[in-house]
Amino acid sequence: MAQAELIFTGDELLRGEVVNTNQSFLAEALLLLGIETTLALCVPDGRAEIASAIRDSLARRPAVLLLSGGLGPTPDDLTREAVADALGRRLEQREDLLRVLESRFADLGRPMENSNLKQATIPRGSQALQPVGTAPGFYVQEEGALLIALPGPPAELRRMWTEQVDPLLRDRFGLKAGEDHSFVRRLRLFGLGESSVADRLSDLDWRGGPVTIGTRSNADGVLIVLRARQAAGDRETPGEQEASARSRGLDEVERAVRERLGPHVYGTDGEGLSDAVAQLLLRRRSTVATAESCTGGLLGKLLTDRAGSSEYYLGGVVSYNDRLKESLLEVDPALLRSKGAVSPEVAAAMARGARRLTDANFALSTSGVAGPGGGSDQKPVGLVYVGLASADDVEVKELHLPGDREAVRLRTANSALDLLRRRLLAAERSAS
Amino acid sequence: MAQAELIFTGDELLRGEVVNTNQSFLAEALLLLGIETTLALCVPDGRAEIASAIRDSLARRPAVLLLSGGLGPTPDDLTREAVADALGRRLEQREDLLRVLESRFADLGRPMENSNLKQATIPRGSQALQPVGTAPGFYVQEEGALLIALPGPPAELRRMWTEQVDPLLRDRFGLKAGEDHSFVRRLRLFGLGESSVADRLSDLDWRGGPVTIGTRSNADGVLIVLRARQAAGDRETPGEQEASARSRGLDEVERAVRERLGPHVYGTDGEGLSDAVAQLLLRRRSTVATAESCTGGLLGKLLTDRAGSSEYYLGGVVSYNDRLKESLLEVDPALLRSKGAVSPEVAAAMARGARRLTDANFALSTSGVAGPGGGSDQKPVGLVYVGLASADDVEVKELHLPGDREAVRLRTANSALDLLRRRLLAAERSAS
Repeated sequence: MAQAELIFTGDELLRGEVVNTNQSFLAEALLLLGIETTLALCVPDGRAEIASAIRDSLARRPAVLLLSGGLGPTPDDLTREAVADALGRRLEQREDLLRVLESRFADLGRPMENSNLKQATIPRGSQALQPVGTAPGFYVQEEGALLIALPGPPAELRRMWTEQVDPLLRDRFGLKAGEDHSFVRRLRLFGLGESSVADRLSDLDWRGGPVTIGTRSNADGVLIVLRARQAAGDRETPGEQEASARSRGLDEVERAVRERLGPHVYGTDGEGLSDAVAQLLLRRRSTVATAESCTGGLLGKLLTDRAGSSEYYLGGVVSYNDRLKESLLEVDPALLRSKGAVSPEVAAAMARGARRLTDANFALSTSGVAGPGGGSDQKPVGLVYVGLASADDVEVKELHLPGDREAVRLRTANSALDLLRRRLLAAERSAS
Repeated sequence: MAQAELIFTGDELLRGEVVNTNQSFLAEALLLLGIETTLALCVPDGRAEIASAIRDSLARRPAVLLLSGGLGPTPDDLTREAVADALGRRLEQREDLLRVLESRFADLGRPMENSNLKQATIPRGSQALQPVGTAPGFYVQEEGALLIALPGPPAELRRMWTEQVDPLLRDRFGLKAGEDHSFVRRLRLFGLGESSVADRLSDLDWRGGPVTIGTRSNADGVLIVLRARQAAGDRETPGEQEASARSRGLDEVERAVRERLGPHVYGTDGEGLSDAVAQLLLRRRSTVATAESCTGGLLGKLLTDRAGSSEYYLGGVVSYNDRLKESLLEVDPALLRSKGAVSPEVAAAMARGARRLTDANFALSTSGVAGPGGGSDQKPVGLVYVGLASADDVEVKELHLPGDREAVRLRTANSALDLLRRRLLAAERSAS
């Protein structure tokens, strides 16, 4: 298996100011290409430190050396210089990059500063990676290693990876577009805790068999990771490897897990709850609207995370203030007075109101005490109602959610999505 | 300044299955004690690899070498063995740890397995750190370096740090409980790119002086980090050090930076744009409402991130579908037809509509092409309008935003917040 090393530059990483999400992104993306990461390190924004890390890494002869960070315009962006030092090459200004940057700034309606000039320089003999923002990357073959320098901001790094680096590496390592080298399956589920999952799967062999089982929990629910151990077959083609992975039992274990967890499983790799809902809505040509209180817009945001969401999401109302619940959603003022905004009755009325207002097939509502203040004995922090209105009825679910304000709000929005998902799933089953 | 190196073990980190949040936690915690992290690395779960990383690190003579991970009971937990190898010490089973583990398992109502026995062994001459879960840590002084081994699960690591390691290091480095050693100031700004910041601050000394300047850009704008270098005074008391740090120029550099960047600076440490807006609204007892299209609810979500937001945020409309722009926000259908939803005219009408609907003092609107699809020559992906309606007028700003869908949407919401922030700031100034 080909090996890679990763070097991240940035004092902010070494002062704990940011969490390094680029590492998990790159390591996972490399693994899909059949490239194993054997070392990852963070070094300070110092020319000598970066150059020395590069030299040490090249001495270990990885097939790929990825750098991230230090390609900006400021004096502490020193990766270009450090690569030039480590490889004994000169930096040269590239006219084509200069022109790309000029047009990029023109598009942004911002003047190009003198400090940006150095972003058009790359080490002699290297190839440019076109800038996503204003930082070009570059790559250069140095003996056995392909050294690739990427910008640090995650959005820029991810797009440059997907559009330029992934195709480059597929080409080098003989992998077609879309063909993956993965021996991992991930299943996502909602509505069960990690320990309940462990309990329901307790008759399966988690670590001893040819396929290992692992779990991890996050706000989207629980993630189950199935991994086929890699045998000696490193020289097989990806197709053969995938086939032998199957024969090693990945399919079989996935089936066993799904049997034990039923409709709690909502998706696989990379799909969020809102993706699962989107697919079901599209399949039924149905639309949804929202009436949000404690989530403040988060539910709508999740429903519009993917492109094309206007096909199924119409919009809705954020009725944070009770007066808007009355004026826009036509919630009965007497109900608000007698039951309070955080009540099953008001959650139901909000969902009905949003549906009436938008003519959507379904409407979701949220109302709860997100905290940290605002709780009482009768309505403590974490008490939440999510509602679902359809042509036939209104369903309301009461939740008691742990965690801080952010966790309660995210969990509330996801619970509303899951309510709709299960309804759509049930409708699909009864129709077939 | 004392220096630390961090070594993280775990194949899951090198496969990208988990994000390494322990690194930012430890680096930040060390900095509060006046200890600077100069290198962080992730190595595989291999005895030889871990031992070699430890030896290399000790050769660089850091004051502290922190290890995390590999203290569990499974065959791939190898940190104990690797430390013993690197230091040339034997592992010994400790009777006291064995008894702690036995009682821990009794509490959990679980049998203690044979595999747990090895968790009671630590290298000869080291001190045990009491287990939070079932994994004891340990520390050992090796010539100039204090080597500390901590478990990998973040909850266990954090509690072991707070209860046992933080007091230990305070004792070693002469710092009282609760007394911090922080010499950093952070300034946040919006509306200027990193390169414009670099240009405006180009007459300041970024790296050579007693206070270094660094920048980092994210969706909230640009973060400027000012850091006072620690001089010879390592033996001063923290109070004296803070005073001398001031005299070494932290205040002076902050003032110089603020002069050059004016109202672009919106806050300091830990404050987001929505916090700055919240404070200004509270001070003027003003309220705001929202009319969102491309952000789908994200703007409302940001405005309600902090507790107590109902004091200034009333709510609004997510008019993702154009019909809702007409029916709820009373945007003229002829305007939508002639100018399109993504136009300054419609953004203005949306903001006016939201203000009328809610009686808020201000209303913000967003409309744009978030991508990746849906762009045209005239209205490319990244073209966005944000609007601000007040009692007096409506202001609309046109933006051309780079990046993917997520980046465009976050930047759009933040641009709307910044538009309101500047308006409130100007009103405050003209009133005083």
